[in-house]
Order: sequence, then C-alpha cells, then structure tokens
Amino acid sequence: MTRTIVESKTKTAIIGFDEPFCVIGERINPTGRKKLAAELEAGDFSTVESDALAQVAAGANILDINAGVVYNSNPDPNQTEPPLMTKVVELVQGLVDIPLCIDSSVPGALEAGLAAAHGRPLLNSVTGEEERLELVLPLVKKYNVPVVAISNDDTGISEDPDVRFAVAKKIVERAADFGIPAHDIVVDPLVMPIGAMATAGQQVFTLVRRLRDELGVNTTCGASNISFGLPNRHGINNAFLPMAMGAGMTSAIMNPIALPVKQAEIEAKKAEVAALGIVLPEDMDDETFCQLFGLGSTKPKAGKEMEAIRAANFLTNNDPHGGDWIRFNKAPPKPGEEAEGRGGRGGRRRRRA
Amino acid sequence: MTRTIVESKTKTAIIGFDEPFCVIGERINPTGRKKLAAELEAGDFSTVESDALAQVAAGANILDINAGVVYNSNPDPNQTEPPLMTKVVELVQGLVDIPLCIDSSVPGALEAGLAAAHGRPLLNSVTGEEERLELVLPLVKKYNVPVVAISNDDTGISEDPDVRFAVAKKIVERAADFGIPAHDIVVDPLVMPIGAMATAGQQVFTLVRRLRDELGVNTTCGASNISFGLPNRHGINNAFLPMAMGAGMTSAIMNPIALPVKQAEIEAKKAEVAALGIVLPEDMDDETFCQLFGLGSTKPKAGKEMEAIRAANFLTNNDPHGGDWIRFNKAPPKPGEEAEGRGGRGGRRRRRA
Repeated sequence: MTRTIVESKTKTAIIGFDEPFCVIGERINPTGRKKLAAELEAGDFSTVESDALAQVAAGANILDINAGVVYNSNPDPNQTEPPLMTKVVELVQGLVDIPLCIDSSVPGALEAGLAAAHGRPLLNSVTGEEERLELVLPLVKKYNVPVVAISNDDTGISEDPDVRFAVAKKIVERAADFGIPAHDIVVDPLVMPIGAMATAGQQVFTLVRRLRDELGVNTTCGASNISFGLPNRHGINNAFLPMAMGAGMTSAIMNPIALPVKQAEIEAKKAEVAALGIVLPEDMDDETFCQLFGLGSTKPKAGKEMEAIRAANFLTNNDPHGGDWIRFNKAPPKPGEEAEGRGGRGGRRRRRA
Repeated sequence: MTRTIVESKTKTAIIGFDEPFCVIGERINPTGRKKLAAELEAGDFSTVESDALAQVAAGANILDINAGVVYNSNPDPNQTEPPLMTKVVELVQGLVDIPLCIDSSVPGALEAGLAAAHGRPLLNSVTGEEERLELVLPLVKKYNVPVVAISNDDTGISEDPDVRFAVAKKIVERAADFGIPAHDIVVDPLVMPIGAMATAGQQVFTLVRRLRDELGVNTTCGASNISFGLPNRHGINNAFLPMAMGAGMTSAIMNPIALPVKQAEIEAKKAEVAALGIVLPEDMDDETFCQLFGLGSTKPKAGKEMEAIRAANFLTNNDPHGGDWIRFNKAPPKPGEEAEGRGGRGGRRRRRA
C-alpha cells in the first residue's frame, strides 16, 4: 500500500491508500489575492499568520506555501520570490507544527523553501515539461522529498485523459531514472471545470483509479477547479470530494476553512432588523449578532468540504469506529436539524429479515 | 445500457446506468410513524397528501407507497393493509403525476396496489426467501412490472457481501425462469449502518459495481441506513449518496425533503430573543420569524441530500450542461455564502500551462 511521508520537525502527514484523506491547505498563496500580495510587499504577515492558524484549526494536514508575488517595486519574481519564500516558511513553521508544501514555479523559490523547511516537505510541483523535469527532479533527489507531479507537458494540458495518464507515467519513469520511488510522486491528474467539460468528473475518477492501480501512486488535485464558474460552488465541491475519494484520490490542495461572515452581510441584516422596528441591545457585538440571527460566525471555521471529507473517511473505512466523525460532530444538533432516526424503511427491513 | 422503465398514467421515470439518479420518496410509510398510523386509522389522509406534494416538489422521481399499519381496531394487516393500499394509491395518483412504487410485505397489499396503480409501477419487493420468490415473481410477471430485489434470503441478511451478491444473482436467475428480464430487477444490496460495521460503505460500493458489471442490473438502497445511530446523519448521507453514485448506484429509497423547523426550536429562539430584551413586532408570524433569525423555514423544502444528488448527477455527466444544477441553484447566494472564485491555484495553473 503506497504511502507518501511528509514531515515537519515534529509531525508526520501520510498520504496513503489506507489513510484518511490528506488535506493540503491552499490559503497561503498571494497569486490572485491582490490584498495579500500588497500586504506582503509592505512586510505585513498578519494574513499569513491567521491563515496558517485557521487552516490548522479547520483540520488541514499540510500547509501549502506559495510566495508568488509580483511586487510593484520589483516585477522579477526570480529576485523577490526566493527571499519571501524563506521568510514565509520560517514564519509558518514557527507558528504551527504540521508539515509544509513548498509551492512555486520559480526555481530559486523552490530551493529556498526546501532549504528553509524543517523535516521532509512536499515539493509542488514538477510537470511533464522537459525543462521542468530537468530542473525539479534533481532538487527532489537532492533534498529527498516527495513531489507533486502535474499531468501537463510541453504540449500543454490535454483534454484527453489518456494523454494525461501518459504524461504522469512519463514523470514517474523519469523520476525512477533519478532514483526517486513512485511512492514519493503524488500525481495531480488535473481537474477541469465541469461547467466547461461535461466529462470532467468522470475523467478524474477514472484517472485516479488508473493512477492508483497501474502506477501505484498517490494522487492530489486542486479540488475547487471542478466547480469553477458555477453557482453554489460548495455544493459541487462537497459531492466531488467524496466521489474522488471513493475513486481512490488520497489528497487535495484546497481551502479547508469557511470564510467568516462578511461585514456587508452583517450590515444588510442590521438594516433589515432596523426596518422592522426591532431595537437591539446597544452593547451587542457582531459575533453575538451573527449567532443570534443565524448568519454564522465572524471567525473562520472548518468549511462544509471538511465535513464531506470526514464523512468519506468514515465511509472508506479510514476513520476507525468513527472516532474522528463523532469528535467533529460532538456539539448537539439543534432540534430542527436532527436527522430522522425513525426511517420507516430501515425499521421495516429489520423486522422482515 | 440497462434501463428500468417505471410509469404512471402520464409520466415515465427511468432508472438507468446513463440517467440522472432516481429518487424514490420514502415518506408515505406509516411503519414506525405512530402519528401517521393513527391518522390513517381515523381516515385522515392529510399527511399522505402533504407528503406526496412535498416530495414531488423536492424532486422525487417515484413515490414509494407503503400502507403497513397495524390498527388498534384490527391487528391483522392481511385484512387492513390491502384496502388501505388501494385507497392511498388512488389518492396519491389523483394528486401527483409521477410513478409509484408499491411497497408491502403483505401479499394482498402488493396485489391491491398493482391493481389500483396506473401505468407501470415499481414493486417493492422480492427477496431471496423461497416463499417470497414464489409469491412475488408471479405478480411481477402477471402485471409486467419492475421489482426491487433485496439481497437477503431464508438465512437472513449476511454480513458477507459475497453472499449478498450470490442472493441477488439467485433472484435474477429465478426471475429469468419466469421470463422476467434483468433490466426489470432493481437490486438492493442492503446497506448496513457504518457505525456498526466499519466496512459497510466499501461493501456497498463494491457490490454496486459488481451488480452492474456482472449482472447488468440497476441498484437501489435504503440510503439513510448507512448513518443509523450516528450524530449528524445528514453529513454522512450527503457524502454516501455521491460516493454510491460514483460506484454506479442508480436509485435510492430516501427522504427527499428537509423537515420544517420544529415548533420547539421556534419557541427556544423566541425565549432567547426575549431574554435579550428584544421586542419583536406583534404581528410577526412564525415563517417571517424563522427567516429573520436564520432558522430555516416552517415549510418543508428539498433536503441537502437532493443537492448532493444533483451535484453528483452533474459530476457523472448525467446533467447535460448543468441545466438542472443551475436551475436548482438559481437563487443568488448570500454575500457570506459565496464560494471563493479567485482560487489562487486554479489561476496559477492556467497561467503556467
């Protein structure tokens, strides 16, 4: 049974066929987060810190660290990203104790992250592109770390899953030439948006099964890609993750936290309340207000995706006796939320048998 | 590709390998619902009517009709169940137009239901028990209807999935002796509670795949059995259904509706509000109150399981262009509920490729 060992100074995360799903928290990544990028350029690491803590609290097993900024003051990431990677890695591993995933497309940043990280981080990523193979595999060998292998090559991302399988196979073979074992390769078969490609889900499920059965490798994916551009993305993601796990997927790079209630939503609700002539106690804080009116919380908490993953761990027999499920759900349900235990059919069956 | 055709007078439901999942609404069943049983004994069919309408509104494709009462005035279901089945079938098909599933362990009730139902109802059920085979298969043949086949026999329900597969195979073979084709058999491989048997999920997924590949039959299950006795049953069910669909399950007998907010919960919230010194408008009705305080609705609506099923239909390429998903989610999400569209990883990937 394939096991990929990822380590911090004191903790081990195992990605494996008979292990609970490994959640790689994706939040520490300024790519596409302009506000975060600006903060980092200004030397403000408060969002990195809060994202690290919130993801661990939500149940992440590994934290992805991406320092892919393009500073206004210096547009060359080859110069700016390596020192920022070092800084963020040092900061995060001083704050939380789970293993890290060093994520960059900049060679110097990969090496800076590897040099700074304690233990045995996951490297993210190699692809089937020749230049990338020649660059990343020696690093993987030198630092003896596991690596994410993304199934695209010099021809781009193929829409044909057989081609993506062949690319993954090529990477595994090239890694073997470097003495890197298959159990240190975590293949990302690439998840296409289901809104753009109707077979995107089936492709992933089939590919994951083949990668597991034929190459013996662990798998991962950027899970939220599946729902790109669609309404109620969480609804898609919450079904996709258990289905991918059922097909044999062993990890995902994803956001484990539900965003806190936005200030705009709080203000809209307060306006609605005021319009009804309802007067609230003057000293009521926003958190109490949100709880009272069922808006959720002003603090980040575990997202519904984490509930789906925990349920699927249980259903794939990777949560012995449901201990994790029961702990996760230990708060008593509200009266209206309780599932119906009396299910006529179940009862009838038992009597019939 | 196997297709099981179930019909009302005007509508067809198809259970099939390349069809959206078929939801068989389980609510019209007095077994274990004492209040409903008492209502039926008193000639009150209002709950049957509201359950029929609410299940159809929630998206059920077929309605299961079970009239399994034990009257205080007459404890013999062989006398009371057949006329009640006739009455309920006539009532429901006068009210809604989707096909029915005639569900009983009483032979006379099965025949009464078959006689009363328009079109081509699903019969629920035959088992591998000799007496039951000899009794039900001739009815299936006589009325030319499809039938649910439950994988238990005279030795009971086996915990060994290979035995349950063998029982299903025996039923399919015996049906063939009667001239009943495999595509008219919908096998229920029996779902054990995951809380009692750690391999219950894996057993179902493996069995469904085998039943599909080796016997070419459609499958169903009493879906909520999987979460029996556990906290947050909906959380388990919402992951189980997509996983079962990914394995090839084509229908389930289940509750498609979320129960409305209970009066006790409304009262508790009102007490909480009053304790804070908040005065509500005197004319505020319970529905407005529930909406305002985020409790949900006093009216039944589609349960989260239906969202999971719709997402899984999309992900198994059984919702062309996501039309059903988009219709189902057409209400704009609240600001705080919006999924994060900016996903750094997805953006990064596209740039890299």
